[in-house]
Amino acid sequence: MKYDDVMKLALERGFYFPSCEVYSDAQAGFWEYGPAGVGLKNKFIELWRRELIRRDKMIEVDGSQIMSKSVFEASGHLASFADPIVRCTKCKSTYRADKIIVDATKTVIPESAGLDEFDKVITEKNVKCPKCNGDFGSTKKFNMMFQVGIGPEGEEAYLRPETCQSIFVDFPRLFKTMRGKLPLGIAQIGKSFRNEIAPRQSLLRLREFYQAEIEVFCNPARLNDLDKFSEIENTKIPIQVDNEVKIMTCKEAVDSKIIPNKFVAYYLGILIEFYEKAGIDIQKSRFRKLEEKEKAFYAEVAFDFEVETTTGWLELVACNYRADYDLSGHATKSKEKFEVMDNDEKVLPHVFELSMGIDRSLYTILEHSLREDKENDRTVLSLKPYLSPIHVGVLSLVKKDGLAEKTDEIYLKIKRKYDVFLDHSGAIGRRYRRLDEVGAPYAITIDHQTLQDDTVTLRMRDSMEQNRIKVSELDEILSKKTAFP
Amino acid sequence: MKYDDVMKLALERGFYFPSCEVYSDAQAGFWEYGPAGVGLKNKFIELWRRELIRRDKMIEVDGSQIMSKSVFEASGHLASFADPIVRCTKCKSTYRADKIIVDATKTVIPESAGLDEFDKVITEKNVKCPKCNGDFGSTKKFNMMFQVGIGPEGEEAYLRPETCQSIFVDFPRLFKTMRGKLPLGIAQIGKSFRNEIAPRQSLLRLREFYQAEIEVFCNPARLNDLDKFSEIENTKIPIQVDNEVKIMTCKEAVDSKIIPNKFVAYYLGILIEFYEKAGIDIQKSRFRKLEEKEKAFYAEVAFDFEVETTTGWLELVACNYRADYDLSGHATKSKEKFEVMDNDEKVLPHVFELSMGIDRSLYTILEHSLREDKENDRTVLSLKPYLSPIHVGVLSLVKKDGLAEKTDEIYLKIKRKYDVFLDHSGAIGRRYRRLDEVGAPYAITIDHQTLQDDTVTLRMRDSMEQNRIKVSELDEILSKKTAFP
Repeated sequence: MKYDDVMKLALERGFYFPSCEVYSDAQAGFWEYGPAGVGLKNKFIELWRRELIRRDKMIEVDGSQIMSKSVFEASGHLASFADPIVRCTKCKSTYRADKIIVDATKTVIPESAGLDEFDKVITEKNVKCPKCNGDFGSTKKFNMMFQVGIGPEGEEAYLRPETCQSIFVDFPRLFKTMRGKLPLGIAQIGKSFRNEIAPRQSLLRLREFYQAEIEVFCNPARLNDLDKFSEIENTKIPIQVDNEVKIMTCKEAVDSKIIPNKFVAYYLGILIEFYEKAGIDIQKSRFRKLEEKEKAFYAEVAFDFEVETTTGWLELVACNYRADYDLSGHATKSKEKFEVMDNDEKVLPHVFELSMGIDRSLYTILEHSLREDKENDRTVLSLKPYLSPIHVGVLSLVKKDGLAEKTDEIYLKIKRKYDVFLDHSGAIGRRYRRLDEVGAPYAITIDHQTLQDDTVTLRMRDSMEQNRIKVSELDEILSKKTAFP
Repeated sequence: MKYDDVMKLALERGFYFPSCEVYSDAQAGFWEYGPAGVGLKNKFIELWRRELIRRDKMIEVDGSQIMSKSVFEASGHLASFADPIVRCTKCKSTYRADKIIVDATKTVIPESAGLDEFDKVITEKNVKCPKCNGDFGSTKKFNMMFQVGIGPEGEEAYLRPETCQSIFVDFPRLFKTMRGKLPLGIAQIGKSFRNEIAPRQSLLRLREFYQAEIEVFCNPARLNDLDKFSEIENTKIPIQVDNEVKIMTCKEAVDSKIIPNKFVAYYLGILIEFYEKAGIDIQKSRFRKLEEKEKAFYAEVAFDFEVETTTGWLELVACNYRADYDLSGHATKSKEKFEVMDNDEKVLPHVFELSMGIDRSLYTILEHSLREDKENDRTVLSLKPYLSPIHVGVLSLVKKDGLAEKTDEIYLKIKRKYDVFLDHSGAIGRRYRRLDEVGAPYAITIDHQTLQDDTVTLRMRDSMEQNRIKVSELDEILSKKTAFP
């Protein structure tokens, strides 16, 4: 199914929708999660915690979104986190210079190029404003940070453009308090903010978005000294080599030097295992090693985890080896100590990160899970049962004859533990269809037989099969069927 | 235990700590949750979902924190969400006018008073700058909203000062998409932002803070037409009447008109049941009806749910009957329809809200749970097992003789499902003490007997009792002991 089908589903079934939509000054790049989206997102995060955080004994923090100016001086964002923009001298519309050039001429200029390179192409190829055909002024840098003023004096501070900065700044305290040992993963889930020039396609490029970032602190001298590598050495990962995606085990990737060391390979391995359990079609994914010009300004080596969707290849996770860029930057600027002891050696740790976009991941799960079942005239969202916003629909076949009351009674028993959708009204077939669309893996129906023998039908979303089960067994069955793997 | 004891615990055990603390331009009013704080907060939120959202069949949204200007014109925040401030003409320090007056003269002037009232008292009582003894300029209004500029033109938008505004703005879509019926609760958890003049006491007054807000939309003509009232009619609530806290059932409170109707009483009832399960000492709590001058500018009737701590009475939840203030404001400004059908009647719903401060709630739970056990020379954090950041410590009695390996093996089996702290080193007594302090309700210890008969000791935090259990029974025992009620 395509982007538009997912968008339609999102709007109609309450996954997501535009923010402030009743107002004409609603800004692009801001979206809300509706009830189904909140459910899916929370369960995705719980899976992330189980498969990455708990699996690897990482610790998690939750820091402020507004951070002080020094943080972003040290991180380099105030100097470097900028897009090249051009403004039309006639209608005053503003565009990203690289995007306007690619659209008009198919010439790709990397974001990191000098401003004069953009000006040169615009002049040479005679690129004009697509709205009014006016001329562009010269290319400028536009910093994507949102500034806020603190207190009555409006002291300069910023909304964070990535969640990891709190992890770096908090590292000395966390390592000490939590009695850390290298390697140590520190993770954070939360909102980040980027003042994008051209937000687009709902969850795919937002100005306010969710990240789940993992920063693993390590001793750079011991990147192949990793017992737990054996856990994933036979895990297969798709990795792009010379423009071709090859499937190989993590061990093969390290042995052939396609991945530089066991440490990096371990985290790529557990990441792909996570996404497989999240319901991404792994056949449509790849780790792509970034070229020098594509990398973020802080990254030494970088792999993007990308997934194919109908909108093209989407980057879901940036896997960056940031080396000591961040800790040495903050150490210099703050004059605090960021070194720690590893065995008997004092080290300034290096950092490898898995920087995940949650919103894009959820979009991809939806697109990869949505299918049309023409034979049965229905649309099915085949989410993993443990990720579905609704675990089970509880339906009365009809309202009368005491069936509604019996249904309510069963509903009351399970409603705190599971996400249940209670539905009394409408044709039973239509109610099943609605549950199929929102991804509910199970539905139980209370009918006249229920009153006699305390059994209900349990319907499976994917197979549409129905079994008769005892009400007394319901909790045990649901508990198993909706459990995380 | 006192505020300072909780602060010490928070810093030493990773509950919370100041944001950007390595930098000298760190701003007051911003705090980070460490690993223990994240665990406690997530479980508190899960309990909130179970006891309020799922219990009452509410729906939950997760909206943008940056919202457009129109939203806050309609809500009244741009005009009214301001503190009175005064500035010293000599040293330029700025203070909240009401606070500086109370500190100097004990005179309480409500925030909502006219600016000349503050000036009058400052002049009459000769209030001076506490820093330099300088004179104050005249009192001004300081709006507490954080402004941000969107896109290259910097279009005016704001960080939300309360989460509920997205719920109001999204109401027409949500009601329709989710096939809503009145009364309908819509909830949201997330960050809100207020540019406080005088943030103080860590989690108690923050500039960036977590709210869990519930807005229940209802038909104002049917506030006593509520079947589910029977669920809580005998629930006891502490309610302040004429400066005295009386314990009465919800039914008695409605019958005696202390609470205006069943609808409001129902939500106060389920709220107190929630806080009891969260581990707040209900003996130290009260619902206090606000006087006219104390109420927020949008509230028709308001009860504050307050809890006694060593810092005084703390407001944890504002329970406001906002009537149609919000929906009519947004309907007028946006020209969209906010009425819905209730039975055969078209109504503009009224709103009753439970606006909860999460950070303060967590502080209170910590303070009410922390105790010194002098007899056993330990500090114990008696969190409810289902709220504890660590469910169970897994300890090897000694590292040698294969005990460390056996311990790791047991740890691996349970680490995805439970929050487990694996600890191999140090004296066993000290390890138990550390677990007691972070609130871990259970610890299992692997000793030499384990290698022979596959049993471990299970230690209970509160009683310090130890039982021998089979490893094969561990999951079942932990599952029951850490389950939500």
